[in-house]
Amino acid sequence: MILVMYSNFLPSDRHKAALADLGRGRMVHVAQDEADAVAHAPHAEIILGHRYLRQVLPRAQRLRWVQSTAGGIDILQAPELLQQQISVSRNPIHSAVIAQHALAMAWALLRRIPEATLFQAKGKWAAPSLLLPLPLPRTAHVMGLGEIGKEICRLLRALGIKVRGTARSGSLEQRAVCDEFIPFDDWRCALGDSDLCFIALPLTSTTRGIMGAAEIEQLPPHAVIVNIARGQIMDMHALTTALRAGKLGGAAVDVFDPIPASDSSLWHTPHLLITPKMSSYHPGMQEQTELFIEKQVARYMQGEPLLHVVDKDTLRDSMCVGNPA
Amino acid sequence: MILVMYSNFLPSDRHKAALADLGRGRMVHVAQDEADAVAHAPHAEIILGHRYLRQVLPRAQRLRWVQSTAGGIDILQAPELLQQQISVSRNPIHSAVIAQHALAMAWALLRRIPEATLFQAKGKWAAPSLLLPLPLPRTAHVMGLGEIGKEICRLLRALGIKVRGTARSGSLEQRAVCDEFIPFDDWRCALGDSDLCFIALPLTSTTRGIMGAAEIEQLPPHAVIVNIARGQIMDMHALTTALRAGKLGGAAVDVFDPIPASDSSLWHTPHLLITPKMSSYHPGMQEQTELFIEKQVARYMQGEPLLHVVDKDTLRDSMCVGNPA
Repeated sequence: MILVMYSNFLPSDRHKAALADLGRGRMVHVAQDEADAVAHAPHAEIILGHRYLRQVLPRAQRLRWVQSTAGGIDILQAPELLQQQISVSRNPIHSAVIAQHALAMAWALLRRIPEATLFQAKGKWAAPSLLLPLPLPRTAHVMGLGEIGKEICRLLRALGIKVRGTARSGSLEQRAVCDEFIPFDDWRCALGDSDLCFIALPLTSTTRGIMGAAEIEQLPPHAVIVNIARGQIMDMHALTTALRAGKLGGAAVDVFDPIPASDSSLWHTPHLLITPKMSSYHPGMQEQTELFIEKQVARYMQGEPLLHVVDKDTLRDSMCVGNPA
Repeated sequence: MILVMYSNFLPSDRHKAALADLGRGRMVHVAQDEADAVAHAPHAEIILGHRYLRQVLPRAQRLRWVQSTAGGIDILQAPELLQQQISVSRNPIHSAVIAQHALAMAWALLRRIPEATLFQAKGKWAAPSLLLPLPLPRTAHVMGLGEIGKEICRLLRALGIKVRGTARSGSLEQRAVCDEFIPFDDWRCALGDSDLCFIALPLTSTTRGIMGAAEIEQLPPHAVIVNIARGQIMDMHALTTALRAGKLGGAAVDVFDPIPASDSSLWHTPHLLITPKMSSYHPGMQEQTELFIEKQVARYMQGEPLLHVVDKDTLRDSMCVGNPA
């Protein structure tokens, strides 16, 4: 059986028909809810999506492959996935739109668009001198050079910005997308003249809370930080303290963990832009995800190697992080 | 005498000293208000800034040169400026920041950042499906290929977007910055597959109200219009009607003429982003403007040709527009 349990959308009729067609006689079942997913787990050879994954896995004795709809693997916190007979693959196809969302947030902060929007909502034509746009950026630091980080580097360099990049491995491709590659151990020393800082790291035990008070202190006072990765990578208390003290030009977060209560003062932190984990959303998102998954299912059925398989060591490392988002 | 009357800032002490130094004995006077400017007009050989220009000109019998702080010449509505002995020069040095402001507004709309900001202000974590980001743009139409329009073209093409450009003249340089040059008479036919439309035209009798209901109707329903030129180029009634009817993805205007009353419903038009004529503002704006003007004064004193002089025909054309902003 192919068990379908997507987080963000219901599969289209076209997609369900395509999966049934590709599945060579395997039943395609779309989980209605958690209980339904768990009830069908014992028959699942393939699980598409990660919505009820931890609940389902203890009973999924026939499972051979999990295709997540997410790019990050920190959400795949289940020891069963370390078994050799289960392949786990992820979905990095939305990196172009996530990178553009990251740049849109940065330039919105640079040009004070959230502040202008709040004046507009009050019917006020503000004096530009009240809004105080930031200097045009010349340098950026991109933390994490996976598909998203690399695309952020490409866009920034196209705009004429000097880009420093940091990643754990530092492959040739990762080095090629930056003007300067900064090894992971040295990144803090390089923050002093970064006008922009993009966080595109995976969440691991190493990266949790990695952007804290000391790191923020290193950045110039007009710097803008953008986090489109995972909420736990950023020390939000340190960030809001710095913003309230005027020690940063601004910050944008698309990710939170946990999401603040609606009466939290965090929502109203000056020069903090919050978007609701929407960086991958665009009108073609569902269709592109479905087509990607169909391509993967076709590979599986033909015995071809799956794309974007997560190796077990990386998966094990990621599980040391603890509480998933 | 050098009469200084800037619109957006008071000249710095450094700048006043530099002008005095460059002026070869000419007095430098900073106008305190309109009456003071008019009182000093008969002695002015050079006027820097255009703040009280129409009031001052009838009495400025010794005037030889006006250096505006603005890029657009439609604000220079005074027949005296057509006299051959008066040189008029403009200030296009902020085109890079204006172009970046234009792109920031476009991407803010594409990624629904104003809408996210309004949810944030209410302490609400909105569902991304409520915010409905627009498709990533593939094509853009840039109306007007002066310094600002050309820079918008360069940025868009660097981001991988196919750019059509339209301008009255169509110089080799203007053609070179676009993927496709569309002559002024044909631009309406080319709107059908433009995801973005940037207005960077001068305000003239030809361009006033040029973007109206018929033109908006040509654009695809997800299109985003950005006006960083002059308010009168855009038919705001047609624009807000189209936005309310869901016929456009969004629109951003940095310019208004007139500025709407604070109780106008215009402020609350869906997917309309308003910034308060701030596209040229950045922390270095005043210093860069002052240094540019000092360079121009040095040229004048040495008898070298001034930069960015407006020819009398262009100035005359522009005066046919009528009411300045």
